[in-house]
Amino acid sequence: MRFSRLLIPTTKETPNDATLASHIYLIRGGFIQSVGGSGLYNFLPLGKKILDKVHAVVKEELDKAGCQEVSLSFVTPAALWEESGRLEKYGKELLRFKDRKENDFILGPTHEEMMVNLVRQTVKSYKQLPLNVYQINLKFRDEIRPRFGLMRGREFLMKDAYSFHTSTEDMQREFALMEETYKKIFTRLGLEFRVVDADSGAIGGSGSKEFMVLADSGEDTIVVCDSCDYGANIEAAVARPKAYDATTEIKVIAMKALYDEGVSKVVHFALPASVELQDVKACNAVNANDLVEYEEEAGIETLVVDSALEGMDDLSATEKTYADISAVQEGDTCASCGGSLRYTKGIEAGHIFQLGTRYSEPLAANFLDENGKSQPMVMGTYGIGVSRLLAAIIEQNHDDKGCIWTKESAPFDLQIIVSNIKDDTQVTLGEQLYEAMLAKGVDVLLDDRKDRFGAKIKDYELIGVPHAVVIGKKLAEGIVEFMTRDGMLKEEVSVDTIAELLAERF
Amino acid sequence: MRFSRLLIPTTKETPNDATLASHIYLIRGGFIQSVGGSGLYNFLPLGKKILDKVHAVVKEELDKAGCQEVSLSFVTPAALWEESGRLEKYGKELLRFKDRKENDFILGPTHEEMMVNLVRQTVKSYKQLPLNVYQINLKFRDEIRPRFGLMRGREFLMKDAYSFHTSTEDMQREFALMEETYKKIFTRLGLEFRVVDADSGAIGGSGSKEFMVLADSGEDTIVVCDSCDYGANIEAAVARPKAYDATTEIKVIAMKALYDEGVSKVVHFALPASVELQDVKACNAVNANDLVEYEEEAGIETLVVDSALEGMDDLSATEKTYADISAVQEGDTCASCGGSLRYTKGIEAGHIFQLGTRYSEPLAANFLDENGKSQPMVMGTYGIGVSRLLAAIIEQNHDDKGCIWTKESAPFDLQIIVSNIKDDTQVTLGEQLYEAMLAKGVDVLLDDRKDRFGAKIKDYELIGVPHAVVIGKKLAEGIVEFMTRDGMLKEEVSVDTIAELLAERF
Repeated sequence: MRFSRLLIPTTKETPNDATLASHIYLIRGGFIQSVGGSGLYNFLPLGKKILDKVHAVVKEELDKAGCQEVSLSFVTPAALWEESGRLEKYGKELLRFKDRKENDFILGPTHEEMMVNLVRQTVKSYKQLPLNVYQINLKFRDEIRPRFGLMRGREFLMKDAYSFHTSTEDMQREFALMEETYKKIFTRLGLEFRVVDADSGAIGGSGSKEFMVLADSGEDTIVVCDSCDYGANIEAAVARPKAYDATTEIKVIAMKALYDEGVSKVVHFALPASVELQDVKACNAVNANDLVEYEEEAGIETLVVDSALEGMDDLSATEKTYADISAVQEGDTCASCGGSLRYTKGIEAGHIFQLGTRYSEPLAANFLDENGKSQPMVMGTYGIGVSRLLAAIIEQNHDDKGCIWTKESAPFDLQIIVSNIKDDTQVTLGEQLYEAMLAKGVDVLLDDRKDRFGAKIKDYELIGVPHAVVIGKKLAEGIVEFMTRDGMLKEEVSVDTIAELLAERF
Repeated sequence: MRFSRLLIPTTKETPNDATLASHIYLIRGGFIQSVGGSGLYNFLPLGKKILDKVHAVVKEELDKAGCQEVSLSFVTPAALWEESGRLEKYGKELLRFKDRKENDFILGPTHEEMMVNLVRQTVKSYKQLPLNVYQINLKFRDEIRPRFGLMRGREFLMKDAYSFHTSTEDMQREFALMEETYKKIFTRLGLEFRVVDADSGAIGGSGSKEFMVLADSGEDTIVVCDSCDYGANIEAAVARPKAYDATTEIKVIAMKALYDEGVSKVVHFALPASVELQDVKACNAVNANDLVEYEEEAGIETLVVDSALEGMDDLSATEKTYADISAVQEGDTCASCGGSLRYTKGIEAGHIFQLGTRYSEPLAANFLDENGKSQPMVMGTYGIGVSRLLAAIIEQNHDDKGCIWTKESAPFDLQIIVSNIKDDTQVTLGEQLYEAMLAKGVDVLLDDRKDRFGAKIKDYELIGVPHAVVIGKKLAEGIVEFMTRDGMLKEEVSVDTIAELLAERF
């Protein structure tokens, strides 16, 4: 394609609200455009092209793994959310509206209810199972503070898959297959990532793993082992128990636990003074929707003691239980191998869940087993943040000049830059190489704009196509440059051999 | 793919609300699924596959014509609709909602405002023009009576393109290019269609054409000439003027014309007693939003007389104008060639508009011309109902047994039906042919289900893959059947030559 004919509105201006590299460069490189600063984005031609490339990788690997693509209505009837019990639980992120006939609808933030509804109407027998159905579609979450560009927008593109099985064992087989499939997807996209144990959160279920793209800017803290492949979100991480005894100093923290329908209660958490309370673990320990700080002094009624202190504390309360509520610390010992644990930062780009019957039971998604007995289907669910991946790729792959796209995510394979469009020799060579690459099926961008050379190189750095041929002044001496965006490496190449070199490398 | 592993929930039951063949067969064939009967649909694996095929044809031809794909936010700020003046005009089809911060948004039913907003922020100079930007995305129209399945749903997939130019001439050049591009698209999809003159309706602008897929069930009446290629929607059709004189019997019809902000007035329309008033022409003649019937007797204040009667009537009124307000009748004379006009029925599958500055002026989408003078961009807009096309294809291509997909829209190129899955010889041949076709890159469906042969043939007829190989009892005599869905034609083929025949035809 010709740069001069494409809408690539690059800019020097950094958006006011942008702090992350991906947010800044995706806007500045003309990939996306903010719609009124409200967590809504337009994908401009380059952004849309990358989205399609990522989309294609995801689809290809899922299809290979036997998944089937569907497309569900984005607007979903509120009645389904009542049936599953999430209409209240989900809170204000659920965008609700009424149509002209005063019927209630939800803009789907996730489609468990819709997919279970689809399957319960079409699958009746064990013969039709297992089934793994996915879509790559819009989602809407009315985030209280949309931020970081594509990282936490309100409208976003997601791949959501749902599998249905006759048994937990078969669901676990599929869960393992999806873990492998996700690894292939993230590997093909050129990402450095870790698969980590995760908390199952609001989706529910019994086991889940997150796919974390490693990046300093990641919102998630993950615990990794230096010696083995153990990794876990801090919310779910465990370490080898420490040797505490009766002399261990203990701290007690009071919190207010919030439940459905405005119910709340005060809970005290006791743990070694030297470790931190892990909020999500603590919340799970009392089955609450949320925990908020609580300062008032009071007698202890409900007490949760860290399981590391079991048998060593002399605390008393009306109701006392033990649970793992402490945050793993850097330097703790890996429970798997005895190695040393450390923190790193990650961006959650995928999440797979063993759901069990969390949705099939309330929504009555049943099948007849081999003995003609009705049973709830056992489910798994598997998500990838497709538009978020664009941000994650750039968080992991950029420098202080702009984007450095990976091979499978790059908007083009190669860019040809004609330095001076008024120089016929430069133009002729540029056009020649361009046509030759097109004929070979290489996705190539020809920078044929009238702009100054400096502006073209700045745009090249900003946009981040992996390789470029620069046809400049040295052409008079028979030399052009082959450039690699990662590191801005330059190779001088004789004009007689450049066609050959390109033919070899692409 | 293997039928046994696919989610294709065919059914004998006709949905209650379905009258059109496409609605019935798309549901019965397991292509789509209604979501609570509210004009919302899920696309099941076969429906999604066809949607993708149609999508690909549309994208390929647009890209070849130099259009650029983007993806705009589906949720659009209401402020943009206020700026263009359509927030009120559009009425209740515009789905409005408030987010958690009480900001107003619209689920986009069309994206003129959004696209103009995108372009006004990124295009400043004549050097960046012309530009034709499109998307293939969801739309939502809160129809008062969603019906006919995908034909008039509330959430639907549309290709909407918008072009921007420095002059009317250049816009008209692009308009002609889009007309040709659309012809290629509809031709590739195997559709019989007419390009007809159309009324510009609520979108506004000065000239527009519709692409009508011919089908008896079409909601639109179109006027076509038997001798030349003239065609027009009845709303915009013209015929050679008839020779009326002072003795012509005249009828006068009173209507109430509705305007913005609740304003209305009574208008009388006078025309020859032998012809019908054309509502849309009449509405346009008084620049109203709508016309409703009005029975009350009253003096004539505003009168519109059919232009065919100009100089022949003696009617008087406070305000009297002439305009073409009569419906062309079958048998009228073609204004282009003198041939005879007749009615036919069509489904609107595409619509292209010469918009001019209808949106660029209120939204201040200006560019600097060669003299540095600021001017509003001249626009065109071009739509294709992508999900509606699935219905249109079936309306035109079905029989009393089910769908007959065209080559480029078919879910598969070929179906291989193994009659009796317990017969090893049949299975072996089926698998052999299946693997050979896959290896050749043919998109083939193997019906490997345990079902009875009768059920398999019924499903084949319902689903409508263009061709099938039936491996049945006659295999014992060395014979299989090659079937063509259109007409259910059967050719007996020797088992020795079937592989050859398939290799030739696919």
